[in-house]
Amino acid sequence: MTDKTESTDWLDTVKWGPDGLIPAIAQDIHTQRVLMVAWMNREALQLTASEGRGIYWSRSRQKLWRKGEESGHVQVLHELRLDCDADVIILMVEQIGGMACHTGRESCFYRVLRGNEWQIADPVLKDPDEIYEHKHE
Amino acid sequence: MTDKTESTDWLDTVKWGPDGLIPAIAQDIHTQRVLMVAWMNREALQLTASEGRGIYWSRSRQKLWRKGEESGHVQVLHELRLDCDADVIILMVEQIGGMACHTGRESCFYRVLRGNEWQIADPVLKDPDEIYEHKHE
Repeated sequence: MTDKTESTDWLDTVKWGPDGLIPAIAQDIHTQRVLMVAWMNREALQLTASEGRGIYWSRSRQKLWRKGEESGHVQVLHELRLDCDADVIILMVEQIGGMACHTGRESCFYRVLRGNEWQIADPVLKDPDEIYEHKHE
Repeated sequence: MTDKTESTDWLDTVKWGPDGLIPAIAQDIHTQRVLMVAWMNREALQLTASEGRGIYWSRSRQKLWRKGEESGHVQVLHELRLDCDADVIILMVEQIGGMACHTGRESCFYRVLRGNEWQIADPVLKDPDEIYEHKHE
């Protein structure tokens, strides 16, 4: 049996970028939809694995971001995958609330190129004001 | 009707990184598998749309990379999507040859975290030496 509490070799395998970050893709384990892409540092990836939920590094806020901490739209982790270059992660997740995007859509990738325009192709499932209303309390 | 040859507003909508690049995810339109992540500059994205195939910017070689130019494993473009922050692209593609990874696997994300180890979870479909044999001619 491996000692889960000790070895961090798997974190050393990852080729962290010059800023200490790598892109992390959250993909819905049920719909297979790519939900969002965010960034992880070493701590975010370690916590994602140990807490079993999507935890990222917010570049804009420069701090750890436990996805769902405000919206409740937590990402329950089912599987972590690493690519051949060891510099991109996929999280296979169950997306609580059925939406990952702050706009109230299932996926952040709701714009499709048609002709010369990015057109909105996916519906808003919930009003963002409703999702984040407790932020304004 | 829009004039496809003129407007490049859609390229200006994209928030290119400080290095002029954004991550681009290739996802298989049939299996929904995330095949790979590479990088695009403005020219790569414009050519991807105009030529209808996955074209990236190779950071290691510092030049355009027409996916499949050596392997024959071209990515036929079906759809381009942009995320809410306008800084990540998804290409929905038909992956010719059924493999995107230079290791001869369907997807570059063939390693899964189990316990403390990244374990190889996907089979090699074709020997890389066979895929790239004409490189050595």
